[in-house]
Amino acid sequence: MTFERDNIRRMAAYQWGEQPGSEEVLKLNTNENPYPPSPAVQDALNAFSVERLRRYPPPTADRLRERLAELHEISRDNVVVTNGGDEGLRLAMTTFVEPGSAFGMLEPSYSLYPVLAAIQGARVVRAPLDDTWDLPRDFAHEMNEAGANLTCVVNPHAPSGTLLDPERIGRLASDLHGVLLVDEAYVDFVDPALRHDLVRMVDAFDNLLLLRTFSKGYSLAGLRLGYLLGSRNLIAPIVTKTRDSYNVDLISQILGEAALADRAYAEETWQQVRSARRVLRDRLLELGFSVDISQTNFLLAEVALDAPRTAEQIYEALKEEGILVRYFHDPLLEDKLRITVGTDAQNTRLTNALARILGRLT
Amino acid sequence: MTFERDNIRRMAAYQWGEQPGSEEVLKLNTNENPYPPSPAVQDALNAFSVERLRRYPPPTADRLRERLAELHEISRDNVVVTNGGDEGLRLAMTTFVEPGSAFGMLEPSYSLYPVLAAIQGARVVRAPLDDTWDLPRDFAHEMNEAGANLTCVVNPHAPSGTLLDPERIGRLASDLHGVLLVDEAYVDFVDPALRHDLVRMVDAFDNLLLLRTFSKGYSLAGLRLGYLLGSRNLIAPIVTKTRDSYNVDLISQILGEAALADRAYAEETWQQVRSARRVLRDRLLELGFSVDISQTNFLLAEVALDAPRTAEQIYEALKEEGILVRYFHDPLLEDKLRITVGTDAQNTRLTNALARILGRLT
Repeated sequence: MTFERDNIRRMAAYQWGEQPGSEEVLKLNTNENPYPPSPAVQDALNAFSVERLRRYPPPTADRLRERLAELHEISRDNVVVTNGGDEGLRLAMTTFVEPGSAFGMLEPSYSLYPVLAAIQGARVVRAPLDDTWDLPRDFAHEMNEAGANLTCVVNPHAPSGTLLDPERIGRLASDLHGVLLVDEAYVDFVDPALRHDLVRMVDAFDNLLLLRTFSKGYSLAGLRLGYLLGSRNLIAPIVTKTRDSYNVDLISQILGEAALADRAYAEETWQQVRSARRVLRDRLLELGFSVDISQTNFLLAEVALDAPRTAEQIYEALKEEGILVRYFHDPLLEDKLRITVGTDAQNTRLTNALARILGRLT
Repeated sequence: MTFERDNIRRMAAYQWGEQPGSEEVLKLNTNENPYPPSPAVQDALNAFSVERLRRYPPPTADRLRERLAELHEISRDNVVVTNGGDEGLRLAMTTFVEPGSAFGMLEPSYSLYPVLAAIQGARVVRAPLDDTWDLPRDFAHEMNEAGANLTCVVNPHAPSGTLLDPERIGRLASDLHGVLLVDEAYVDFVDPALRHDLVRMVDAFDNLLLLRTFSKGYSLAGLRLGYLLGSRNLIAPIVTKTRDSYNVDLISQILGEAALADRAYAEETWQQVRSARRVLRDRLLELGFSVDISQTNFLLAEVALDAPRTAEQIYEALKEEGILVRYFHDPLLEDKLRITVGTDAQNTRLTNALARILGRLT
């Protein structure tokens, strides 16, 4: 007998990126940082006595919230810490989207969004990005007409890596009647010369939520730590009502503080990723792929029409060589591969394999 | 402007037990185990390299699931690991309770249940326990009439500490049309002579979910680790659909395995708590409280009608002395205090304070 709700029975599950057991596999499929976390994180772990786990953790992770508030020069009341960025997305859905109502998103985008909407029993309203991965002209109007009380935009965008500037985001927040969640999972990898910063806009727009994660920038995907930034009216119901009371464990809170205290280390990894990204993109262009400039730690490589292999065939051939990249069964993406930027050595292993697969001499 | 859903705006937030910053305070208010976790947990932490946090954790915590399946002599498919027991409760609500439909519970019981129901937009149907904390005779019928697709029962019961035997639970599961979740947060403290075990019933009842936690029995409240046991039809939609994809971080998975590997240590703490529970109950009876026999790590002490102080006054007076117990603003509980069983020394500090407050010589 089945007992789950009808929408749960009908919905398709989220497909997470493959997680090979072997350390031999080169994993360029889930956008992890190729560098380990800061040594300060190991030091904090080494200093931790498990006796402290006997008690419940600080329910709202206030010390970590304080550190994040200092970093972003906002108030603690503008921050809620979550069990990974995914929990932030789920909580936005739980808090702002009425079952049966509309949830807005761009297409393509993070494949978890429609899954979370299905769980909440919300109707997904999708607007296609244009050829240059830019917003459709009437996006806000379309979302408002549909009655979307929450619209999610990944920025920098996944899977293309492109960036909308603060002015565009501000206009969108101002035009939308509901909440705009900007998923900034990859924002740490944006070129600093762009001086891209949406946090200053949190005061100006009472419907703007920003999602951040320690998974990519701080190399802590295994720790499950993220946070939302927004005005008090958005953050308060999440902190006090919809969040599980003890949603973030004590060790994650403490290691998160340690990672922030040595942010300079993380910044250095971002710089290395940016520099490797440039080299990898050039090499992929040489191999005949079309690749947009990316502000993230991945590149979306489009296979040329006259290439000897399809994207899916290349994905399979790489996998046989022990290299995982991401291929999406999606009409908009079926001629593309999303490739995480690794270290220079990893990227060379990838491009050498691609050259062999495509029959080009390296 | 407010953007949250109407039910979120209207609902009352969960009130977590006080978490004093000071280590001086004797915390007998949130039912933590008074003993630290096993040294094996510290060893596992010391051996952990944070480099492993760079990658996402195993999404379904399969190694830990395997260990739990072995412990309970069931299949891995009957287990889902959660971010604390609270997540298990929330996931049951998300998976089985349609917004607008009924959720069933006993009164009094865990105060988080109605909060989770309110978030889900479900109607709470409450049935009062009788004078002996036993189920009302027509409980299943009442829940079925209300259309409850999920009913939660804490067993051993909180806040009374009393236990329903497997036969009673089996009859209830058999009579209910929807899912029965038995919240076994305190089951590790049940007298082993009773040979109480509901896990064997998971095969017999396809509507029975059991909730377990590492918080109390394994002294790991700060780690946020729990699990649900049930038949595949109940567990599968939670594992594959409603759970956040990476709901349990890697360190928690590994420390959970370590705690299970040294379960003998935890069992010894349970034995010490049981023995301290007996002594504490006797002492509370001597002080004039009425106290039921408890199968948990807490006692519910009822203040005598002719006592010189009300329960709330005693709670306040204890707090002034740096001792926290739990007082509930609830008509059924306003003459009672829920007191976590501590070490013998902690319990003596408590009863000495109570004797002073009640004006009795110790």
